Amino acid sequence: MSPNNLTKVRVIYADTDAMGIVYHTNYIKWFEIGRSEILRDLGIPYAQIERLGYSWPVTELSCRYLSPARYDELVVVETSILEVKRASIKFTYLIWDERQAKVLVEGDSVHACINKEGKIARIPPEVREKINPPR
Amino acid sequence: MSPNNLTKVRVIYADTDAMGIVYHTNYIKWFEIGRSEILRDLGIPYAQIERLGYSWPVTELSCRYLSPARYDELVVVETSILEVKRASIKFTYLIWDERQAKVLVEGDSVHACINKEGKIARIPPEVREKINPPR
Amino acid sequence: MSPNNLTKVRVIYADTDAMGIVYHTNYIKWFEIGRSEILRDLGIPYAQIERLGYSWPVTELSCRYLSPARYDELVVVETSILEVKRASIKFTYLIWDERQAKVLVEGDSVHACINKEGKIARIPPEVREKINPPR
Amino acid sequence: MSPNNLTKVRVIYADTDAMGIVYHTNYIKWFEIGRSEILRDLGIPYAQIERLGYSWPVTELSCRYLSPARYDELVVVETSILEVKRASIKFTYLIWDERQAKVLVEGDSVHACINKEGKIARIPPEVREKINPPR
Repeated sequence: MSPNNLTKVRVIYADTDAMGIVYHTNYIKWFEIGRSEILRDLGIPYAQIERLGYSWPVTELSCRYLSPARYDELVVVETSILEVKRASIKFTYLIWDERQAKVLVEGDSVHACINKEGKIARIPPEVREKINPPR
Repeated sequence: MSPNNLTKVRVIYADTDAMGIVYHTNYIKWFEIGRSEILRDLGIPYAQIERLGYSWPVTELSCRYLSPARYDELVVVETSILEVKRASIKFTYLIWDERQAKVLVEGDSVHACINKEGKIARIPPEVREKINPPR
Repeated sequence: MSPNNLTKVRVIYADTDAMGIVYHTNYIKWFEIGRSEILRDLGIPYAQIERLGYSWPVTELSCRYLSPARYDELVVVETSILEVKRASIKFTYLIWDERQAKVLVEGDSVHACINKEGKIARIPPEVREKINPPR
Repeated sequence: MSPNNLTKVRVIYADTDAMGIVYHTNYIKWFEIGRSEILRDLGIPYAQIERLGYSWPVTELSCRYLSPARYDELVVVETSILEVKRASIKFTYLIWDERQAKVLVEGDSVHACINKEGKIARIPPEVREKINPPR
């Protein structure tokens, strides 16, 4: 089973726009929060991946916006790791209302693994093992 | 042929992140600039669509990140209208380096047409005609 | 004694810039988080102030940046209410490192009280009493 | 006389909040645009200051918000250099409506000059001369 993280975020005015709802790119910033927290849960905080000499820039992103979040609402960001390939990793996200009754936004992102020279690199084995522990 | 708009944007520090490149959601804000300018070119600025009683929230978004933009670079946002359906519209975007030699980011967005009651509504004919002029 | 709120915020990449530190306006967004939480503590969430028919736009802001926050650090936003005048309110903020050993940023903001017609209005008494309870 | 730059910015949805006006930190991002453009005018783009080995982080900021900007308005950012000290520089900003009939926001920022070791450093003479040319 895929690892999974739930993190709450409170909507502030900075997140909203003149339509009265959260501006569409701000949900994608919450995806980053979810990604950061699932990696921390797994014992491989992203800051540690960087100390190992790697970065994971976003190469693909997709979102479907189903229902808007509004000022002062609490939302729940649910993050899973969908797939770890040789040199890339795919996360998937659901943003729920506070009671997790309704999905507001769903999305996924693919990240390349890049070494210090900026070249595509294998996901380091110590990271891969934390994500897919050997049985 | 589909209408097309080219708009230049200069990268500022606010757009970048600690990887030294533009943070991935900021390219998507530039998509909004392109969308805004292509509608203005067509004689239907988005503010006017709102005055007619409609809003066009984003319902789907996708991006592919090919090469990063960096601080102080000029980028060119190329925006086209890909498709106008009964109650939705799809834009497509290319973000180029200054000389338009290389695509940095490509993406598209789908927008629902919503009336003041928040219901899905037909794209108003006066808007549709500006996008697809009768021959 | 003035009411006081402490709220933790985790720095994400979205908050940083190409200098490797938090971009200077993002600390000011955290001021908004602190303001929101101190009002909630006092039993007058800002959303309720809006339901009473008022808004509190920022009219003055000042910040001093002493030491930068970096990616993945936890910071503590300490918010106090400095002064409640007839038609305005002043908040003061300290942003601390995680252990509250060092102040990173200090600032304050003044907010006018505006009614639905956009006119300056008295802070409503039910709000004033929650901030300065009668003895 | 102090050098001076005027740059136009078009308000997009990303800049606004659920009050229907520009969120207060976004004017401060436009200050960065003005700062960037006045330095370019003077022949010392900030990217060049960085190549010389310096950075100019913000150490103090203040703003007064007089009148809001709204979606799709063009605003004019007027930037001046107020003072160049030994190791710091102060900019001042006026954000005007499109016709420059009314000031919407006024502010100023102080920046320390920092060398690659992160130490306070003199503003390099080749930069100082461009700002205050010898007569």
